Amino acid sequence: MQHAGPHWRNRGTYGAEIPLDPWFVTGLAEGEGCFCVSIAVRPKMKVGLEARPSFALSLNERDRRLLEDLRTFFGCGWIRESRSDRTFKFEVRSVPALVERIEPHFQAYPLRGAKRRSFEGFVRVCQVIEQGDHLRREGMTEIVRIACEMNLGKRRHSVDQLLRVLSEVKG
Amino acid sequence: MQHAGPHWRNRGTYGAEIPLDPWFVTGLAEGEGCFCVSIAVRPKMKVGLEARPSFALSLNERDRRLLEDLRTFFGCGWIRESRSDRTFKFEVRSVPALVERIEPHFQAYPLRGAKRRSFEGFVRVCQVIEQGDHLRREGMTEIVRIACEMNLGKRRHSVDQLLRVLSEVKG
Repeated sequence: MQHAGPHWRNRGTYGAEIPLDPWFVTGLAEGEGCFCVSIAVRPKMKVGLEARPSFALSLNERDRRLLEDLRTFFGCGWIRESRSDRTFKFEVRSVPALVERIEPHFQAYPLRGAKRRSFEGFVRVCQVIEQGDHLRREGMTEIVRIACEMNLGKRRHSVDQLLRVLSEVKG
Repeated sequence: MQHAGPHWRNRGTYGAEIPLDPWFVTGLAEGEGCFCVSIAVRPKMKVGLEARPSFALSLNERDRRLLEDLRTFFGCGWIRESRSDRTFKFEVRSVPALVERIEPHFQAYPLRGAKRRSFEGFVRVCQVIEQGDHLRREGMTEIVRIACEMNLGKRRHSVDQLLRVLSEVKG
């Protein structure tokens, strides 16, 4: 949370003391945000796969203050450093926080570009997880199909490999 | 310009028919926009250098429609393809358009992060050019110093090389 005390003078000339406008947040996310669903192979789990949705927004280290404002804005998530490329990342992984904080924002202040389609798939994945359907073969199959459409070309496992894991377990 | 005719139905589900919110534009520019001042060596010009300010915003080819909305929003600029990386760029190079359309937007809806400092330098460069001071050694020296601070590490000529060109001409 932001403080109105004497610290505001130390924030430089960047206007960081003014709350973020919700449309500013959507515009920034349109360019730099990422709705991601990663799928891990987990032989010990019932369906053999685990789905982990996350929302992340990366900026150069110079804009770390802006990431802190984003965290204040959403009231959830963490900021961590990416060692590889001098960036910092605001990230939300908790499914309740994604459903209660992140999704309502982008429903009220919608994305416009191609990222809007990723968001729609993301909402569906979180819904399947909230309903507990990711613990059944049918639900996880839907998640795998949506996830592979959302994040093309960045997967460790191909969609065929993941569907093969699912076909080997009992529904 | 946008048409209100039957074509709107062809715009898909991306809500492109809703005008852009000004804060959305600032948020998008915070991440993807670029205030640039390029300096070219021009032996035939009086001060030996030419300064060319531009505002540009690049997006993936899937978001070309959003760039068209930006062009409508600002009422100036052009969209062109970058052959190297499958992106499209909205770009404004005309100094009157930069001063009358681009700068007032970012003064009314300010950037927050490190890009705000680039914008402040950019405004000063356009002011020097509008006053005609870029045709004098002193004015161009100020532009070179601001430009090199704004776009570190991407220059064909070093600041020392550029200042050497200026030192060889008559003020």
